[in-house]
Amino acid sequence: MTIRSTIMDTNSFRAEHAAELDPKTLTLTRRREDVLGGSYRLFYRKPVHLVRGQGQYLWDAHGEKYLDMYNNVASVGHAHPAVVEAVHSQMRQLNTHTRYLHERILDYTDDLRTTLPAYLDAEAYKAMYMCTGSEANDLALRVAKAHTGGTGLIATTEAYHGNSELSSSVSPALGSGQPIGESVWLLPAPDSYRTGIDGNGPDGIGAWFARQVRAAITDMESKGVEFAGFIADSIFSSDGVLTGSHLKEAIDVVHAAGGIFIADEVQPGFARTGDHFWGFAAHGVVPDAITMGKPMGNGIPVAGLLAREEVLASFSDTVPYFNTFGGNPVSMAAAQAVLDVIRTEGLQQHAQEVGAETLQSFKELADAHDAVGDVRGTGLFMGFELVKDRGTREPDKELALDMLEELRSRGVLTSVAGPHGNVLKLRPPLPFDRDDIGWAVDALHESLTVLS
Amino acid sequence: MTIRSTIMDTNSFRAEHAAELDPKTLTLTRRREDVLGGSYRLFYRKPVHLVRGQGQYLWDAHGEKYLDMYNNVASVGHAHPAVVEAVHSQMRQLNTHTRYLHERILDYTDDLRTTLPAYLDAEAYKAMYMCTGSEANDLALRVAKAHTGGTGLIATTEAYHGNSELSSSVSPALGSGQPIGESVWLLPAPDSYRTGIDGNGPDGIGAWFARQVRAAITDMESKGVEFAGFIADSIFSSDGVLTGSHLKEAIDVVHAAGGIFIADEVQPGFARTGDHFWGFAAHGVVPDAITMGKPMGNGIPVAGLLAREEVLASFSDTVPYFNTFGGNPVSMAAAQAVLDVIRTEGLQQHAQEVGAETLQSFKELADAHDAVGDVRGTGLFMGFELVKDRGTREPDKELALDMLEELRSRGVLTSVAGPHGNVLKLRPPLPFDRDDIGWAVDALHESLTVLS
Repeated sequence: MTIRSTIMDTNSFRAEHAAELDPKTLTLTRRREDVLGGSYRLFYRKPVHLVRGQGQYLWDAHGEKYLDMYNNVASVGHAHPAVVEAVHSQMRQLNTHTRYLHERILDYTDDLRTTLPAYLDAEAYKAMYMCTGSEANDLALRVAKAHTGGTGLIATTEAYHGNSELSSSVSPALGSGQPIGESVWLLPAPDSYRTGIDGNGPDGIGAWFARQVRAAITDMESKGVEFAGFIADSIFSSDGVLTGSHLKEAIDVVHAAGGIFIADEVQPGFARTGDHFWGFAAHGVVPDAITMGKPMGNGIPVAGLLAREEVLASFSDTVPYFNTFGGNPVSMAAAQAVLDVIRTEGLQQHAQEVGAETLQSFKELADAHDAVGDVRGTGLFMGFELVKDRGTREPDKELALDMLEELRSRGVLTSVAGPHGNVLKLRPPLPFDRDDIGWAVDALHESLTVLS
Repeated sequence: MTIRSTIMDTNSFRAEHAAELDPKTLTLTRRREDVLGGSYRLFYRKPVHLVRGQGQYLWDAHGEKYLDMYNNVASVGHAHPAVVEAVHSQMRQLNTHTRYLHERILDYTDDLRTTLPAYLDAEAYKAMYMCTGSEANDLALRVAKAHTGGTGLIATTEAYHGNSELSSSVSPALGSGQPIGESVWLLPAPDSYRTGIDGNGPDGIGAWFARQVRAAITDMESKGVEFAGFIADSIFSSDGVLTGSHLKEAIDVVHAAGGIFIADEVQPGFARTGDHFWGFAAHGVVPDAITMGKPMGNGIPVAGLLAREEVLASFSDTVPYFNTFGGNPVSMAAAQAVLDVIRTEGLQQHAQEVGAETLQSFKELADAHDAVGDVRGTGLFMGFELVKDRGTREPDKELALDMLEELRSRGVLTSVAGPHGNVLKLRPPLPFDRDDIGWAVDALHESLTVLS
């Protein structure tokens, strides 16, 4: 079958490459087909068999070293000793649910709220913990509906917000087979490169996007659907990594219409964007709910929701919610270690500085290659957009997929995003350092050269 | 507000007890109110502040030791060293997602399938991994709908299947504030004690339940709702811990109508019921999907779905599914250690033998106390039903809630279940041993005596 889906439609193992695989890799690949559900996909035409990770590096079973340019889960670095030891120590002590008292969930929440931008009233946000970003978004969407009494939701046309029935109903990136909710309105993300609209003011991309949001609300209300809220990843990761600060006007529209703004920070959150600890802070907006996941526990399944007290109360006054593993002492120990490492290693500033240098290098590289239409990024989250023609900006998905393979053969692991599947999504663990820029740039340069 | 909900309506901290709390406990309780969402509830009028766990025991901040009679997450024992070390070792090595090859997920799946009852074709079941039982049930319900093309679901009137929007729509135990899905039909569980119907054959409880299932399917189809499936926890944990082997006829009805049977093994699974590794095996039924969670990783968030290949394919051929943390090497290491411990420590047989002795002791105790209407159980999963009158069987919820407090003051931690909230749910970690029976029995006896 064919599924149109950027998220899944990256290169995957293909039978015709079987003969090129070493016996062990082939055996593992076949065993997956035998025992796992058909949803499991492997990156790369010739899959990678990883056995070890450290910092920003991974090693395969042959001892080959890779530069991880994709993983924002192992965000403070693969196998970070501080996280490993925090989990180990707490596991030896106690790991039980939140219906008994324990300090960790409280200390962590206090600390987490200090990471909110100064312009927010941190104490107005209450915390809920779960295990995955999907669970966080599922709950946030239910909270938005409970608070407003509405069902109408707005998301972007290539958004990905999770794998539960509800969160996937606002995740068109899952492809044409994924049913989009009846009361979900989809809007193209504010993409300056593709729209050619940039800057601020009434003709800027922010105003352009806000007009769309307003029109969507008007449309849903004209059809008898009451507006509940707008959910967006503030860096529009799945929509192609769209950096900028242009959500303010749209969020004003959302709030004026009585809707809830859910800032999905599963990808941009936890210091990655450099300038800010949270992606939404670049836009200067006030979220009603902030969802977080992937990097929160550096690989231990930890996720969270911070929501304005009165918004959350609309839900919790009516429906009980309990998450068995959510907020347990081990999850919180992992999460606390991540916050501690971000601070002690200065990873936010590091992301800002090294990210800026990397982006500069990528831009210089792009000048030398006509296939690169646009390079953008903030901190250690970058998009590298490939086109057939710089003038027409026609997306080159085939090139992007071939690039993944060429980069892999040069030890650089990454993947693609965007509605056209032509944007390399470069999002390394935060310890990615100045010394790594050369490896990434050389691999990109050589791959582009080989494929041009 | 008042929420009618067995699950949440256990005793919780009440302001009038504030003066009775030591300062540390009171401070922690207040801090929870300050920083966590209103959904968080504490067990007990005077909350317990736990700091350590080992095996079947827990210790509070004052050094008081407790017998854990409730926790099926720390199923092979709190802080089990084999699980701790397996997680520690794998965390030091590698923890990344399933789009690269790794042995652990494959070895574990091979091993997991060997635990299926011999009457099933284990190789016909394919695995999916996620982080919580809610995620497993959410996916299983979507799979059922995708496979049948229907939306009609059947669950029991006090079922709990999860906290996502979809899984909570089949979870009436969440109370009157929780919307039940429009196409969800609820049936009373097969409760021999309350219906007075027991045994097999055409007048037995199995036939009684099957007739209800048939009537529900007929009713939904008459209303234009196509039948998708039936979801049940085979020990009906939230419905009051209903042991027995009476699902066969109902599942025959489900299958004859083209529906999917989802065996929710989040509570009964992983050797707890003693006679069988999986709860559904006691009924001799063939599930189309088996969901699992809580005890699977002994506290590390691991959950899974085993589903018949052709059933799962109906979903995965159309919609991509990816769970970032699901099936990662650390999750699988924890899950593998749990399976290993169950085997090396003989915990299934242990649950069977010690469970039988415990049940016998409980039954003898019950004979001496009129307030005990029924005691039932299988392995280390027992229900202890409290009534105002043995003749009328009128449930005594107030007594059950007071019992929780009395038991707590005697160091025994547990909670309640059932539509009337009058069933003590006794479900200790599997290392619960012969030496512990006395503690449990004495605490029950003294509590019943004090309260009678």
